[in-house]
Amino acid sequence: MSKRFTLKRLLAVSVCGVALANPVHAAEKVYRLKLAESWPSNFPIFGDAPKNMAKMAEAMSNGRLKITIDSKNKHKSALGIFDLVRSGQYDMGHSASYYYKGKVPNTLYFTTMPFGMTAPEQYAWFYFGGGMDLMEKVYGEFGVLSFPGGNTGNQMGGWFQKEINSIEDLKGLKMRIPGFAGEVLAKVGAKPTNIPAGELYTALERRTIDALEWVGPSLDLRMGFHKIAPYYYTGWHEPGTELNFMVNARVWKKLPEDLQAILKVAMRTAAYDMYIQSYHASAENWAKMKSEFPNIQVKTFPKSVVTALQKANDALLEEKRASDPLAKEILDSQARYLEKVRVWSEISDNAYLNSLSD
Amino acid sequence: MSKRFTLKRLLAVSVCGVALANPVHAAEKVYRLKLAESWPSNFPIFGDAPKNMAKMAEAMSNGRLKITIDSKNKHKSALGIFDLVRSGQYDMGHSASYYYKGKVPNTLYFTTMPFGMTAPEQYAWFYFGGGMDLMEKVYGEFGVLSFPGGNTGNQMGGWFQKEINSIEDLKGLKMRIPGFAGEVLAKVGAKPTNIPAGELYTALERRTIDALEWVGPSLDLRMGFHKIAPYYYTGWHEPGTELNFMVNARVWKKLPEDLQAILKVAMRTAAYDMYIQSYHASAENWAKMKSEFPNIQVKTFPKSVVTALQKANDALLEEKRASDPLAKEILDSQARYLEKVRVWSEISDNAYLNSLSD
Repeated sequence: MSKRFTLKRLLAVSVCGVALANPVHAAEKVYRLKLAESWPSNFPIFGDAPKNMAKMAEAMSNGRLKITIDSKNKHKSALGIFDLVRSGQYDMGHSASYYYKGKVPNTLYFTTMPFGMTAPEQYAWFYFGGGMDLMEKVYGEFGVLSFPGGNTGNQMGGWFQKEINSIEDLKGLKMRIPGFAGEVLAKVGAKPTNIPAGELYTALERRTIDALEWVGPSLDLRMGFHKIAPYYYTGWHEPGTELNFMVNARVWKKLPEDLQAILKVAMRTAAYDMYIQSYHASAENWAKMKSEFPNIQVKTFPKSVVTALQKANDALLEEKRASDPLAKEILDSQARYLEKVRVWSEISDNAYLNSLSD
Repeated sequence: MSKRFTLKRLLAVSVCGVALANPVHAAEKVYRLKLAESWPSNFPIFGDAPKNMAKMAEAMSNGRLKITIDSKNKHKSALGIFDLVRSGQYDMGHSASYYYKGKVPNTLYFTTMPFGMTAPEQYAWFYFGGGMDLMEKVYGEFGVLSFPGGNTGNQMGGWFQKEINSIEDLKGLKMRIPGFAGEVLAKVGAKPTNIPAGELYTALERRTIDALEWVGPSLDLRMGFHKIAPYYYTGWHEPGTELNFMVNARVWKKLPEDLQAILKVAMRTAAYDMYIQSYHASAENWAKMKSEFPNIQVKTFPKSVVTALQKANDALLEEKRASDPLAKEILDSQARYLEKVRVWSEISDNAYLNSLSD
């Protein structure tokens, strides 16, 4: 016994010696979190954000925080991430808040809104304008924490087979455009539809639909729409699409404070990084499209069309405000913030770009 | 001896026991780094970036990485941070790369350039377009690591006592505008000067100078220039001013890998955060200025003036290219990147903002 005791002691001291010499503490608890993402395996940019986050968290925690990622190919529930995290089936998620408006209507407001804020404007609202508190109000009661998860930048208005010169041209237009923006378009007479991603190319090519929106050059290039539609319209409906990270609140509470800090900063950085990666990929991919198909025409809806869409959007937002006090609180916060921050956007980058010679 | 040995052993085991039970490892080495910043104590926004960075690093490392910050009030060397870090008098610095162009000419290119990239464009260049490698080429030979340290956003062109309607109006104009942008203005006939911050208000008020640039609403408000000059010109000379963090390379190498990862991510996030904080503060402060002094007029130089300034800028950049192969490499990289990324800026946020009704 005595000998074994000594051996045990020696072993303990030896392990301890290793621990003191080396930052890997063998006896320290390793926290393994599982994250479910909405995207297929190896989906670029969107899928890079949680990978980047997990990599940073593991490196910063010296292996004490390990996050494994399951793509939709594994969990088969691309649009069910909120429930997977809420129920604790997964510790974390990476998705987009507005996917869950059917279940929790006020999640709609934390991704992007037609005629809403651009990416830097919206980050300013989240972090300095009260947005994070409002997001907590919405997600908190479900035991879920939500954080910004990466921005696509301003999404393009989409690929069109014909030019849009007046609001008449939108009437009856069959367009793949899901969500709230689809409701706005319906209000001015268009026929929004949703079609699975895999069928979009053929639908546009065969004119089953007249137009579609996807993301922007960063992700449109691989879809090939630029080969079959002549007009690429600039955006109005998703000016700063922010994905989100979700964390189960019980899991969060069990993490030591330093790992909470690590996880929070890793998510924050990965979100910003995705915005910058999207900016880069948009620039690169647009250059590719334009060099292969130099006849693509970039178009912007005329003012009359934009004004009509803005009116339709305002009317729908009034309905949302009337339906729920928290919706009103969020929309009012966004509207007040936008009024201030937009003036700055106009007199800074926008004035600068407009001042330059062509 | 035997007794003391046992005591020491027991003590070691006891310390080790604490280490294993509690994530604060008493026996673990605490790394204390000293950072020198270019700013006075409690300088807003610029000074918040290193504070934010240090706070994140300490929380994420569970107290193993402690960074103390000395303002210029302490070290008395606001524009000497590069040398303080290079020599090892300080482990880290927070400053702006272009302050050191007198000592290392190629540091000029890592802050902002007249008619250069906006903040998101430049972050994309740094992180995805080769900018970080080029910055390493410049700083590496001095044993210093440099990282983005926070962006002010597009800086305003400055406060003017009179309107600028043609290039003639710039001739002889006495303007406080330091650095490379001052050289550009000199080339079209203006008289750039530098005046200490504390004397600027009086100089502009008494017309000792006709104009000055500082930052933008985020930091101009406290200077009070809006009370004494009627015209606020939009920017051209610093479209995305990025501060920088510097780390002494020997200090960096001595940090364990996990603390390197923590420090790197903390700096990266603090930089992004400062960009967003600047965006917010610009919006807030511009609203304040405009409500207190509703007659302030925001102006943009006419195209003819912008074109003349661009030509002067291009000529100066050609001189830089001719003077040094590495300068040429950096400027060519920026020019190639700008050409691609700018088209994206134009068809995304810029087209969106231009499309909206006033």
